[in-house]
Amino acid sequence: MSEAALTLEGWYALHDFRSLDWTAWTAADDEERAVALDELNAFIEEWSGVEEAKLGSSAWYSIVGQKADFVMVHLRESLEELNKLEVAFNKTAFAAFTTKAYSYVSIVELSNYNPSGESGEDPMQNPHIAARLKPALPKSKHICFYPMNKKRELADNWYMLDMAKRKELMYSHGLIGRGYAGKVKQIITGSVGLDDWEWGVTLFADDALQFKKLVYEMRFDEVSARYGEFGSFYVGNLLTFESFDEMLKV
Amino acid sequence: MSEAALTLEGWYALHDFRSLDWTAWTAADDEERAVALDELNAFIEEWSGVEEAKLGSSAWYSIVGQKADFVMVHLRESLEELNKLEVAFNKTAFAAFTTKAYSYVSIVELSNYNPSGESGEDPMQNPHIAARLKPALPKSKHICFYPMNKKRELADNWYMLDMAKRKELMYSHGLIGRGYAGKVKQIITGSVGLDDWEWGVTLFADDALQFKKLVYEMRFDEVSARYGEFGSFYVGNLLTFESFDEMLKV
Amino acid sequence: MSEAALTLEGWYALHDFRSLDWTAWTAADDEERAVALDELNAFIEEWSGVEEAKLGSSAWYSIVGQKADFVMVHLRESLEELNKLEVAFNKTAFAAFTTKAYSYVSIVELSNYNPSGESGEDPMQNPHIAARLKPALPKSKHICFYPMNKKRELADNWYMLDMAKRKELMYSHGLIGRGYAGKVKQIITGSVGLDDWEWGVTLFADDALQFKKLVYEMRFDEVSARYGEFGSFYVGNLLTFESFDEMLKV
Amino acid sequence: MSEAALTLEGWYALHDFRSLDWTAWTAADDEERAVALDELNAFIEEWSGVEEAKLGSSAWYSIVGQKADFVMVHLRESLEELNKLEVAFNKTAFAAFTTKAYSYVSIVELSNYNPSGESGEDPMQNPHIAARLKPALPKSKHICFYPMNKKRELADNWYMLDMAKRKELMYSHGLIGRGYAGKVKQIITGSVGLDDWEWGVTLFADDALQFKKLVYEMRFDEVSARYGEFGSFYVGNLLTFESFDEMLKV
Amino acid sequence: MSEAALTLEGWYALHDFRSLDWTAWTAADDEERAVALDELNAFIEEWSGVEEAKLGSSAWYSIVGQKADFVMVHLRESLEELNKLEVAFNKTAFAAFTTKAYSYVSIVELSNYNPSGESGEDPMQNPHIAARLKPALPKSKHICFYPMNKKRELADNWYMLDMAKRKELMYSHGLIGRGYAGKVKQIITGSVGLDDWEWGVTLFADDALQFKKLVYEMRFDEVSARYGEFGSFYVGNLLTFESFDEMLKV
Repeated sequence: MSEAALTLEGWYALHDFRSLDWTAWTAADDEERAVALDELNAFIEEWSGVEEAKLGSSAWYSIVGQKADFVMVHLRESLEELNKLEVAFNKTAFAAFTTKAYSYVSIVELSNYNPSGESGEDPMQNPHIAARLKPALPKSKHICFYPMNKKRELADNWYMLDMAKRKELMYSHGLIGRGYAGKVKQIITGSVGLDDWEWGVTLFADDALQFKKLVYEMRFDEVSARYGEFGSFYVGNLLTFESFDEMLKV
Repeated sequence: MSEAALTLEGWYALHDFRSLDWTAWTAADDEERAVALDELNAFIEEWSGVEEAKLGSSAWYSIVGQKADFVMVHLRESLEELNKLEVAFNKTAFAAFTTKAYSYVSIVELSNYNPSGESGEDPMQNPHIAARLKPALPKSKHICFYPMNKKRELADNWYMLDMAKRKELMYSHGLIGRGYAGKVKQIITGSVGLDDWEWGVTLFADDALQFKKLVYEMRFDEVSARYGEFGSFYVGNLLTFESFDEMLKV
Repeated sequence: MSEAALTLEGWYALHDFRSLDWTAWTAADDEERAVALDELNAFIEEWSGVEEAKLGSSAWYSIVGQKADFVMVHLRESLEELNKLEVAFNKTAFAAFTTKAYSYVSIVELSNYNPSGESGEDPMQNPHIAARLKPALPKSKHICFYPMNKKRELADNWYMLDMAKRKELMYSHGLIGRGYAGKVKQIITGSVGLDDWEWGVTLFADDALQFKKLVYEMRFDEVSARYGEFGSFYVGNLLTFESFDEMLKV
Repeated sequence: MSEAALTLEGWYALHDFRSLDWTAWTAADDEERAVALDELNAFIEEWSGVEEAKLGSSAWYSIVGQKADFVMVHLRESLEELNKLEVAFNKTAFAAFTTKAYSYVSIVELSNYNPSGESGEDPMQNPHIAARLKPALPKSKHICFYPMNKKRELADNWYMLDMAKRKELMYSHGLIGRGYAGKVKQIITGSVGLDDWEWGVTLFADDALQFKKLVYEMRFDEVSARYGEFGSFYVGNLLTFESFDEMLKV
Repeated sequence: MSEAALTLEGWYALHDFRSLDWTAWTAADDEERAVALDELNAFIEEWSGVEEAKLGSSAWYSIVGQKADFVMVHLRESLEELNKLEVAFNKTAFAAFTTKAYSYVSIVELSNYNPSGESGEDPMQNPHIAARLKPALPKSKHICFYPMNKKRELADNWYMLDMAKRKELMYSHGLIGRGYAGKVKQIITGSVGLDDWEWGVTLFADDALQFKKLVYEMRFDEVSARYGEFGSFYVGNLLTFESFDEMLKV
């Protein structure tokens, strides 16, 4: 039996992808649409209060292509809060113009393949670590989300590698990520036991091309090349009250 | 040919995941909703009578994310009783506001890789074993359900291992589970010949993070690392009359 | 090139799984439901005439879980007759309350890995064989259906084994089945060239647990362990006019 | 790099599988149904003119089971003509009672693993070859359609075999087919670059059991056993104006 | 760790496949259809202005078979522009007669396995390269689109090959493509980090058979034979205002 890496967990995460029923939306009358947007905007404004109180963070992006029209990403202290958020959205008049597209349940995670020697230290007391476990979601121009597994296929079985080998591979993997510092911000959420893949990766960048550069470069790294399994990729553009209004204007 | 492990079976299980049609629910008038909730509550109250009579057990949890809105887990003596339960639900006025999301048919199971030497003993006469085969479902704050197989892929074929090897592997696997005693309660249901995967795993915990810790730690164990195949994971929060009323309040 | 086993074929089989639209059914008025049930019952009664004339056989079971609400299994002389049966059902008023769930087209088959030496004998003249090729479907309390393939994956390729090896493996496989004589009746239908899997397996038992015991024990047998690939499993309970009426009573 | 086999291509093919909305059809009034059938029959009659002019060929079969209710197979000179045919069908009143079930785009193909030495000959001038590339579809009692690939999985990679080996394997494969001469007519259509599988196989027989016999026997042949990957199988019965009228009579 | 190939990127691409709701379209009255077509034509005319200004390019093809009825391919400077295009389409009256079929998000890419020695040169200053990165989409009679991956399966792992080996393989692969010069135009778009596959391939030809010839010949090349994984293939015919009007005429 191989030793598991130490992980630290922070806020729970819900990625909630929705499609718009454009036919119903364009068929609605101006008042219906105005009511729906008012309710939606009130719902969104509640998020900023939570974020200011440092009790969570939310982000809101359009999605390019037919997989979804937009995504709401929520970080909160508990699964109960996440469930309340989705229920609250589902009760808005706006939700009746949307359909479910995809969702992902996970928890912000730091994998620690390199635990420090100070055994007495509580890492959550380290403000740098605490900030990474309970992060304010960036307001970058673009988002990229994908779920992933580490492969367990005959000779390519991540979970049968010993700790030293995994540590070595993850170190080299991390170097690539560090090469994108300042260009791409990355939030890793663990979902073993919570959703269908083992991790979710949420990237933020002002230049969407950096998503491609980063993921492509990593694919040649042994961690991804031999051991990575990837789900669907979702990319999108930052939504503001203004840009969403513009998007929904009929 | 390899020898199968001895298994003991108790109550049949139905995991019945449903989604709510929020648009129809919010569009209904107060009376329709009140009638629907009254019927649903009467349906749920019948469960507690069954549970008190020790003829079965039921649990009721919300599900986080879009896979479903809630799950009803039923343990009963027979497939006929499980079918009657789903039919009874389908006839309620509340069911008309729901759609099917996923279901799983299985039977509570104890795998015995370590049969005792007392050949004359009937294990069902052992009250500890009987209680595990016909358990009262915990009312923990959180549920986690996933179906799984043991792999049969070329060199990684669980069913081609001999009994001694499987026993050894399962022993080490069981040690991890025991490390979560008091944190996670686990009910294993067998579904070979009953549903699409070989087993269902239903976990209960007051701290949902323990689901992740447990499943992640197990993934490095050879039983999971080499031989485990996993389906979708569903996590959720305990529902009470009060919390469900709150969830459905428009 | 490996020699194919000799197969004998009897009646064609259609497994026709349907779901009920419970919302439409409970919303219909009493007369609509009565008309629908009368038509359905007349349709079902026609089956018994066919069965008495030994021109085919039909069975009718509920299905537990969300995959379907019931299945009609039809054995008939030709694909034309099977098509007429599904079309006749589709035209009933009852069918308008149902949706398609799954179907399977196959033909009752005996695989003969052990042909007798009497070369002049026509096996269809053997009444024992003829009865197995054109069987009356049992009216056991429970049904289990699943489709399956023999694997063709690199070193685990059933179709690259020579005849002697397959014969030896099938013999040991058959011994397990024989251990369930009196508990489980099994009808094998071949579907190579007819539907998406190579075989359909339909099991009948008064004790549903025997499905699990049989399929689990077989899974450790090399034929299943190395070479078996399995589709979805459907289990259900025998339907009678009375139990179906009860199930549909609003 | 391995040498590709020479292929000759004839007419493009569209297999257009449709399901009938039986609820809408039985709910329509007699006149609506009569209009729909008249339009459909006119549409079908146009096919026979094309077939007489040897500008294409069409066939029309019911499908047994829930995958579809019927299939229209069209062979034509160009993708434009095939597109016009599907559009023309979609505009009929009858089409409003149908839903899409599956389709396949391909082109009649002869694979030539044994090119003759006469380098100057244009195979399309050979009337035997031309007739196979632009065939009149048989009016046999039964049809069987399935798409397939040649596998590319590690050691079982058809496309990494050299020409001589593939030629040898295909020769033995062809011998099986020849054993069914007079029982099964086979039309191979290539779909590399046109649809999701590499080939479509369309079989015609008066005895549907021959589909099973042929495909099962071939499965033990190395070309199929090691290198064949198969999609869904569709089987059905010949439709005539009379039998389709009968099928649709309410 | 293996070195990634240098890639150059140009315009972002959206392939937007749609199906027509023929029942709704034929049921609409002449005026509704005229309004819808006018809006659609105005939407399409905006594209030509963009194309003349060399700020992007768009193409518009019917799709043969049931996967979709037509595809709009858009090349633009940014994800924001692509999102605006799909939103603008969704707001047209015509869109209410369509449903989503498939979409693909990617970016025009040149993979450079053979970087020139002139280290100081900016390849975007090379007009030949710039024209390939920001191309005007051909108006050929036919289109073929498919997404693809390079395989990572045990011994067949593209991303574990060293640069020299990949360069050698890609060179031979490129030779096949060059053999189709003048027959097939090819636009490669990268989608690592943007959509579910690693690349999209869009082919244009006046003779659709050349798609099959090219893709089939390439399949025997080691790059495809051992390392290629392919998604769905979509083929179609060029749409003009006239041919689309003809297609939609009721």
